[in-house]
Amino acid sequence: MAYELYYWPTIQGRGEFVRLALEEAGADYVDVARGPKGIQAMMRIMENAEHPPFAPPFLKDGETIVSQTAGILLYLGARHDLAPKDPVGGLWTHQIQLTIADLVAEAHDTHHPVSVNLYYDDQKEEALRRAEDFRENRIPKFLGWFEDILARNPSGEKHLVGDRLTYADLSLFQTVEGLSYAFPKATERILKEFPRVAALHEAVAARPRIKAYCESPRRIPFNEDGIFRRYPELDG
Amino acid sequence: MAYELYYWPTIQGRGEFVRLALEEAGADYVDVARGPKGIQAMMRIMENAEHPPFAPPFLKDGETIVSQTAGILLYLGARHDLAPKDPVGGLWTHQIQLTIADLVAEAHDTHHPVSVNLYYDDQKEEALRRAEDFRENRIPKFLGWFEDILARNPSGEKHLVGDRLTYADLSLFQTVEGLSYAFPKATERILKEFPRVAALHEAVAARPRIKAYCESPRRIPFNEDGIFRRYPELDG
Repeated sequence: MAYELYYWPTIQGRGEFVRLALEEAGADYVDVARGPKGIQAMMRIMENAEHPPFAPPFLKDGETIVSQTAGILLYLGARHDLAPKDPVGGLWTHQIQLTIADLVAEAHDTHHPVSVNLYYDDQKEEALRRAEDFRENRIPKFLGWFEDILARNPSGEKHLVGDRLTYADLSLFQTVEGLSYAFPKATERILKEFPRVAALHEAVAARPRIKAYCESPRRIPFNEDGIFRRYPELDG
Repeated sequence: MAYELYYWPTIQGRGEFVRLALEEAGADYVDVARGPKGIQAMMRIMENAEHPPFAPPFLKDGETIVSQTAGILLYLGARHDLAPKDPVGGLWTHQIQLTIADLVAEAHDTHHPVSVNLYYDDQKEEALRRAEDFRENRIPKFLGWFEDILARNPSGEKHLVGDRLTYADLSLFQTVEGLSYAFPKATERILKEFPRVAALHEAVAARPRIKAYCESPRRIPFNEDGIFRRYPELDG
């Protein structure tokens, strides 16, 4: 039976980390909310499920509902060989994903530092300050941590964990994609300091299934409703 | 061999979620950074480990290092009967913890909405706006979700998962403790709408090991260096 992915149908957002894992795995899945009455179906589950997701994305695998992006990837990684089978390696991959989730939340808050319930224009002054800190301090700190992990990997610097692709590699690819969209000047400048991260991004982009996916209509273009938004005044 | 917990020695912060699980489990642990040269030891691991934590807290179990609060609890829950053994129940417990982590990050950002690298006084205007949204919209949304989970639990409304204590219950207790410290007026008002959450908080507080811990010097008092800070102007 195909997986059912539930996420907002017009943005990459957090759902994209799940889509990339499903695509790389060649898994059979339906992106439910992009079909007719999909959003109603998504809302119905959130309102009625015994294990209600706090927010999309969530994955339905038969009767099992899994929410939280990192939780979904923990679930999929074990089933589709996108994480090491040994418990320590599996948990390490998950820890990296949790840190990527923290970075993604901070990227979101650059344009919504006050409230998700207000428009960007109603928190633009705060956004200018927060984005400056994010560019100057936070992006380098996070990317530097990924660079360290790659440099210290005893199996080589091509992957974050071991000598094979994991969902953490896919998620770091997506994070670099998003940062490059939202903060093109800053990200280009910062990536020069972190060649292993830049190389991993390129290597994942060239993987046949990821490349085919990114060129397909299944890949929603970045836009200003998602997590990573291009507001030129926030870049620099 | 005793676990080694590494976290900032003067605050509850995110480390407290781990301390509560260790205390309830009756596990043998050393809170390393509270001892002599503990902070240096913590920094050495962060700088040199093959699996470097991005930030404290992290747990050392022999040669294994586990970081990210939710990752540590996933690890401890399985070892100390603080989560269901079945995979679906274990993953559900983890999803709740991940959502608590999101709430904790938002609570932190009420006093640091611009940057962790600036003092509170340098972002107080932004903090006033963010805290208002947090009190009015976010606390009710999160606590309402926990209330729904308790109400829908087929094993009864005393626990978030199944009919026994899990680390998610401990973490919800700590979250209510923190919110009550930081936003006493708002939290008292909001909790009246969520009686199951309030009852869970009371029940966990009365557990013998938790009560003994909270009355011991091992429990660091809340203060204005931690995640949950009492700035009266942010309450209301």
